[in-house]
Amino acid sequence: MADIYKTLKEEAWEANMEIPRRSLAIYTWGNVSAFDPARAVFAIKPSGVAYDVLKAEDLVVVDLEGKVADGKLNPSSDTETHRVLYREFVRLASAGSSAIKGITHTHSTYAVAFAQAKRPVLVFGTTHADHGAEEIPCTEYMDAEAVQNNYELETGNLIVDTFKKQNKNPLHMPMILVAGHGPFAWGKDAAQSVYHAAVLEEVCKMAHLTLALDPHAKPLPEHLIRKHWERKHGPNAYYGQKKK
Amino acid sequence: MADIYKTLKEEAWEANMEIPRRSLAIYTWGNVSAFDPARAVFAIKPSGVAYDVLKAEDLVVVDLEGKVADGKLNPSSDTETHRVLYREFVRLASAGSSAIKGITHTHSTYAVAFAQAKRPVLVFGTTHADHGAEEIPCTEYMDAEAVQNNYELETGNLIVDTFKKQNKNPLHMPMILVAGHGPFAWGKDAAQSVYHAAVLEEVCKMAHLTLALDPHAKPLPEHLIRKHWERKHGPNAYYGQKKK
Amino acid sequence: MADIYKTLKEEAWEANMEIPRRSLAIYTWGNVSAFDPARAVFAIKPSGVAYDVLKAEDLVVVDLEGKVADGKLNPSSDTETHRVLYREFVRLASAGSSAIKGITHTHSTYAVAFAQAKRPVLVFGTTHADHGAEEIPCTEYMDAEAVQNNYELETGNLIVDTFKKQNKNPLHMPMILVAGHGPFAWGKDAAQSVYHAAVLEEVCKMAHLTLALDPHAKPLPEHLIRKHWERKHGPNAYYGQKKK
Amino acid sequence: MADIYKTLKEEAWEANMEIPRRSLAIYTWGNVSAFDPARAVFAIKPSGVAYDVLKAEDLVVVDLEGKVADGKLNPSSDTETHRVLYREFVRLASAGSSAIKGITHTHSTYAVAFAQAKRPVLVFGTTHADHGAEEIPCTEYMDAEAVQNNYELETGNLIVDTFKKQNKNPLHMPMILVAGHGPFAWGKDAAQSVYHAAVLEEVCKMAHLTLALDPHAKPLPEHLIRKHWERKHGPNAYYGQKKK
Repeated sequence: MADIYKTLKEEAWEANMEIPRRSLAIYTWGNVSAFDPARAVFAIKPSGVAYDVLKAEDLVVVDLEGKVADGKLNPSSDTETHRVLYREFVRLASAGSSAIKGITHTHSTYAVAFAQAKRPVLVFGTTHADHGAEEIPCTEYMDAEAVQNNYELETGNLIVDTFKKQNKNPLHMPMILVAGHGPFAWGKDAAQSVYHAAVLEEVCKMAHLTLALDPHAKPLPEHLIRKHWERKHGPNAYYGQKKK
Repeated sequence: MADIYKTLKEEAWEANMEIPRRSLAIYTWGNVSAFDPARAVFAIKPSGVAYDVLKAEDLVVVDLEGKVADGKLNPSSDTETHRVLYREFVRLASAGSSAIKGITHTHSTYAVAFAQAKRPVLVFGTTHADHGAEEIPCTEYMDAEAVQNNYELETGNLIVDTFKKQNKNPLHMPMILVAGHGPFAWGKDAAQSVYHAAVLEEVCKMAHLTLALDPHAKPLPEHLIRKHWERKHGPNAYYGQKKK
Repeated sequence: MADIYKTLKEEAWEANMEIPRRSLAIYTWGNVSAFDPARAVFAIKPSGVAYDVLKAEDLVVVDLEGKVADGKLNPSSDTETHRVLYREFVRLASAGSSAIKGITHTHSTYAVAFAQAKRPVLVFGTTHADHGAEEIPCTEYMDAEAVQNNYELETGNLIVDTFKKQNKNPLHMPMILVAGHGPFAWGKDAAQSVYHAAVLEEVCKMAHLTLALDPHAKPLPEHLIRKHWERKHGPNAYYGQKKK
Repeated sequence: MADIYKTLKEEAWEANMEIPRRSLAIYTWGNVSAFDPARAVFAIKPSGVAYDVLKAEDLVVVDLEGKVADGKLNPSSDTETHRVLYREFVRLASAGSSAIKGITHTHSTYAVAFAQAKRPVLVFGTTHADHGAEEIPCTEYMDAEAVQNNYELETGNLIVDTFKKQNKNPLHMPMILVAGHGPFAWGKDAAQSVYHAAVLEEVCKMAHLTLALDPHAKPLPEHLIRKHWERKHGPNAYYGQKKK
């Protein structure tokens, strides 16, 4: 029987392999998923499997109710977080936004440092502005009750709530720091979500080094932030080889 | 004649080779041992032999009285430290604990920095809590008398005493910093001990970068520490592919 | 028909490939161009094309009026900056200076940190003095009007104006930091421009670490700065295998 | 005709190749020499030749009067510094010390940072004490007159004078920082000199990270410094596989 999830699992597998290639996590401390809106399922890394033995067929396919649709292994322990985020992204999409179809979680070192210090990342330069025209948010700590309830699902809720409270749009800011934990990033596909996770790590490293030179460093003026965001993401974007 | 220590030496050799692969020490500044409780011996790296010429048959087998049971080379100069720790772990095991069968010593850079600054590593995030629900301890400096006596054996005693004084259980906290020197880590086998040494280095780097952002950074709330420890090590652990 | 720009494109391609090799930018965050004074054109990286699929024939040839002379892809979004700089360098050349025929732009991490902190890099040591006998300048932020006008062209003007205001000669100081953005470097050919970009990153890292040890670190005494500059670039230069 | 310097040039070449392998300098910013006391000559890297094209036969042989004994290329611009140091080491040897037969100069990043901040490196831990039982010295800046005279020769004199003023023995402290410039290291052969240059870089990185955690970090107690030095270098040294 043909595997109807083969392409989705291969896409998720390829994106997962970027985590060790780009040094975004050591051992098994990261995971990427790829979402198929037609079937309302996502393929995600199995829990605790090392990247150097991970095969595309090991990926686990989970639906938006959290039921395993395909795969023999346990899905990532962070599966419930991915699920809540996809559910929210689908909700946003039905309101007219374009879809988000990939999510990446890592423990990349500089992003974790900002998460541990509970600091959002200000827009200190154009590298940041090229990928988001506002600060990268950091959540509050999850409270004890939510942790008791369903920790990983509540991590997803915490991310969604932080975006709502701060009036941020996940289509414009594709990354967040979960306080005391680490980064989550997303994108139009699994590959772009891991790209955003790598951007986040590099932007955090640049911000860390900037703050070491000047603890009171000021963010980039707004007109420069807008310009860099617009030239890549605005209606007249001109970066790259074709319009989106 | 068959080498009854062949498997033990191969396990220790494989774990030793992780030290250069994971950049946990340059040159010969690290060593791993693997313990066989049935024979009450451990295989350890020979002293001062470079990793790129190290072969499994070069490993030295030493018993718990410190006598060389097998091998032509001098064992690591840190052998007495390993011996004292295995003796202590066996003592704990007979009191009902599960066994520790691997020990790793490195001079990994960030862990050494904390050891040189004589600072324990607070639990700033979930990366740390996933591997220990408490701060990573740092010993006091060894006093002049102990140094005169038997330096490497006393290093083992210093580690054991620090755990006793701080009422810590080596099964729950698999790593320590020896003041002014560097890290020791252990685990259920040699591979896990070197894994813990790599975790320690990464956790120290994350803590260092966190403290640079906020010298007064607060540890993670206790309910988050407990949750992360329990989901990997508690009676209902659900991380990975099978229960321990 | 023979490609009259083949050699120029190959030179520019080879220099572009140094960006990932020397870790001067991740993904597509850098570009190098090579200038041909006889034809008054330069070959530059196409916009947003990944280095691992970039071929020499993909390079785009642009003339000093900004018209594409050869190539099917869109040139780098930074093309106008390169163009303004080459136009200025040609102007200087006609006043008797030797030509500059290569430009490199990257987002290398430490150079970006100085640019984001809006700090010039003082001459703290001989590594710096070997490549420039004065501080590495940092521009002001571009104002809102210039950004509206033609951002990338104005980035070139900002660089040229900063050199004029500070009375600096681009032949003696082959690098600059654009405030809130990142570094540009140039040289006698494309290869030397990327060499200068790598030097800039290393000098910035050394300066960053020096300032961490002493926030009030003093620059090298003038007699040592002159000596190091002269032994490599003066009329009696004696470094290397032949006089220029 | 047989090349009587073949072995010496190969030894120096092999040690030079360690500089890029161990990331002790980028491009051509380092050099190693190997000394032959019988012929009173040393083989040194040619000036400005890239490591990836450097061949053993390119090495230049220079005698203690500074005359090229063999080789077609210009020797390293730092040749006079090496020469002064070998002359001094020979002088010490004739007073009964064992010979030093290799010298390495690099621009390794953390060592340069200490040199640029003009800070000696205190003995913060056993990694340092294993290789020297005292602080790593840093010279003063060279004065303008010495620079005018013969800069590279005077760099050698500055090193020798710093050791004399501080009553240090180059056989016990095999490395130094030249203020505002960078590190020099030496050893019983070329290989050991580059080993000491790598040790210096790692010890400087550890010290830098220690000072970031505690700007007033205290050095290791003397009894621990002595112990680590003695177990590797004392009359009863027991590290490694055989007594010296």
